[in-house]
Amino acid sequence: MLIVKKFGGTSVGDKERIFNVARRCAEEYRKGNDIIVVLSAMGKTTDELIAKAYEINPNPPKRELDMLLTTGEQVSVALMAMAFDTMDVPSVSLNAFQVAMHTTRIHGNARLKRIDSDRIMHELEHRRIVIVTGFQGINKYDNYTTLGRGGSDTTAVALAAALHADACEIYTDVDGVYTADPRYVPKARKLEEITYDEMLDLATLGAGVLHNRSVEMAKKYGVQLVVRSSLNDHEGTIVKEETNVERMLISGVALDRNTARISVIGLKDEPGMAFKLFNLLARANINVDVILQSIGRENTKDISFTVSRDEADAAVEILKENMSRIGGKNISCNREVAKVSIVGAGMMSNPGVAAKMFEALYNQNININMISTSEIRVTVLIHEKDAERAANAVHDAFGLEE
Amino acid sequence: MLIVKKFGGTSVGDKERIFNVARRCAEEYRKGNDIIVVLSAMGKTTDELIAKAYEINPNPPKRELDMLLTTGEQVSVALMAMAFDTMDVPSVSLNAFQVAMHTTRIHGNARLKRIDSDRIMHELEHRRIVIVTGFQGINKYDNYTTLGRGGSDTTAVALAAALHADACEIYTDVDGVYTADPRYVPKARKLEEITYDEMLDLATLGAGVLHNRSVEMAKKYGVQLVVRSSLNDHEGTIVKEETNVERMLISGVALDRNTARISVIGLKDEPGMAFKLFNLLARANINVDVILQSIGRENTKDISFTVSRDEADAAVEILKENMSRIGGKNISCNREVAKVSIVGAGMMSNPGVAAKMFEALYNQNININMISTSEIRVTVLIHEKDAERAANAVHDAFGLEE
Repeated sequence: MLIVKKFGGTSVGDKERIFNVARRCAEEYRKGNDIIVVLSAMGKTTDELIAKAYEINPNPPKRELDMLLTTGEQVSVALMAMAFDTMDVPSVSLNAFQVAMHTTRIHGNARLKRIDSDRIMHELEHRRIVIVTGFQGINKYDNYTTLGRGGSDTTAVALAAALHADACEIYTDVDGVYTADPRYVPKARKLEEITYDEMLDLATLGAGVLHNRSVEMAKKYGVQLVVRSSLNDHEGTIVKEETNVERMLISGVALDRNTARISVIGLKDEPGMAFKLFNLLARANINVDVILQSIGRENTKDISFTVSRDEADAAVEILKENMSRIGGKNISCNREVAKVSIVGAGMMSNPGVAAKMFEALYNQNININMISTSEIRVTVLIHEKDAERAANAVHDAFGLEE
Repeated sequence: MLIVKKFGGTSVGDKERIFNVARRCAEEYRKGNDIIVVLSAMGKTTDELIAKAYEINPNPPKRELDMLLTTGEQVSVALMAMAFDTMDVPSVSLNAFQVAMHTTRIHGNARLKRIDSDRIMHELEHRRIVIVTGFQGINKYDNYTTLGRGGSDTTAVALAAALHADACEIYTDVDGVYTADPRYVPKARKLEEITYDEMLDLATLGAGVLHNRSVEMAKKYGVQLVVRSSLNDHEGTIVKEETNVERMLISGVALDRNTARISVIGLKDEPGMAFKLFNLLARANINVDVILQSIGRENTKDISFTVSRDEADAAVEILKENMSRIGGKNISCNREVAKVSIVGAGMMSNPGVAAKMFEALYNQNININMISTSEIRVTVLIHEKDAERAANAVHDAFGLEE
């Protein structure tokens, strides 16, 4: 068996944890398996490097920021190889140049294009555990790139796909994917299985376990994922195309506080206004989420949408600068909002799921601000103060604790 | 003019110093010069990384230690590029993969073989300051290597040679090369010029300003070096083939405390004994310095030699293990010794230089333990307690303070 195992920053945060990971991998190696280990930077290393960069330059060139950040994973993989050495397990660490992890040229948010498997295959054939730096790649100019959030998960999935691995295990600090975040929904329950599509929606909605890019890639290449804890031996959650377990109506409730609502009031009611507005944001690389358009007074319309909270200021600024071009009268921004979503492949064939959610919120006297739905998801925007109460009420209403 | 400037770890130890370096380089860049900056890891970074490695593995695989250590310079060059960016000076940082800095395959002590100048030339043509990681290279297996002590100096000299630079400036925390270490010889004087050969001997003897490998390479390729301070604008010391200044009898006094004397007593007086003994040490990569062989009693001989103090234990252990093969009777090791040397191209044509040194020591009642000479150098081994007194006495005797 060829197994790809990815461990995040907290899983390699100190000496103890590094050896903990090494022991787990060595055990499976000794059973005769081929092992590829993908690592993130240790603990808070990336944050510390970013802080160093900002100390020098509040707006560091992205190419150089990537050059700086990629050192973090390189430290992790080298130390891990040293740990394996103490256990007499042969291993070798490889960075993005050595693997040849080709990406697009965008710094800070590159996409993997192609992995040369030669070097890794060569090392595996010599029965070495191969330890690969996650999160990083090189572009066609031989410059380092980084893959953005959840980048190490993407590295692991891409390696599993490229090398036709038998398993791809994502180790994290939680036991798997839950029906809701156990930190604020005490009755949350771990799922045995979940589909790619459900996971995608949960990831997008801030479940935080897996990043949607890695799930997208897993779905595209049919890589079955296991999400499990690096701290214990509990079985995790399997992410795959179809789940075998009896279909629940919904799989989980997601809560996302990293959101802000921006409203542009009094836009001229002309064709192309929405395009102009969102094109401005797209060109600034600002992701827009839920969008609501309504008719205003006097042949005008109002557009509201959500963006992640850290991009709200930038979005407002861009729109204000271009007020004359888009012709709006007023822009407001509300940061005291949160998104609560339910996700489940089961809702496709069950009308009334959304209504059940709205009822649960109504019973709690929680006001709904905006609504957005997809085939397997319903999202509502509510006041932030109601967020946890809403998540618990919805979790209860769908009987997810069973 | 194409100028290579190398800055050591203390010169880029914090934000202030990084900007100090950036300003110096920007100034010369703005005059129209092409600038290549070679950097070491910041401050104590390398020591900290080594400590991290030893925490995991007291005997880390050298390949992985290099993988770990090379991150240090990468952090320096990325931060430097960010500093240039704040000054609107275009720059780009390059690591050993990006430059293509090919070395031999030995980890921890590799030698530079070949530098691909394409990428650097391309960047210079675009009028960017090129910031290169010192100390590191890649071998033919695409693994990181490091160049050992003084490695960043070597990187700078190699780049200057490969790119036919007009100047190669080595910035350090002292003003230049002194007639002796000013920390213990108060009358020490900075030299305006010194020859490669003199510098080589001073470097080997622990003067600490330049490493001998970089000087050897500078001599081989005729790269004229300037050693100067990164903290002020004082003129430094020029290192070149022939000096123009009137020949002093000697150029400097060097003191090296990092030495230990090992004596092997009662070796059989047979051919090949010395070979066997030193071959054992060579195979363990232990450098032997001054060697003295004398006739012992009863057809035996004694061999004494010096090694650096941190390798003394290993040397003694190896010899003890092989006592039967080399046939010695007893091994002793004395760590309380120091080497004092005088160096000067002038002594070739001046007999009596050694005698003058011995006289100075005799006047101070300092006992000489071993003596070793070369064409331009005289070294004596003395008790460590006499070291500074000896250095000052010799410095005075040759009138170096003038």
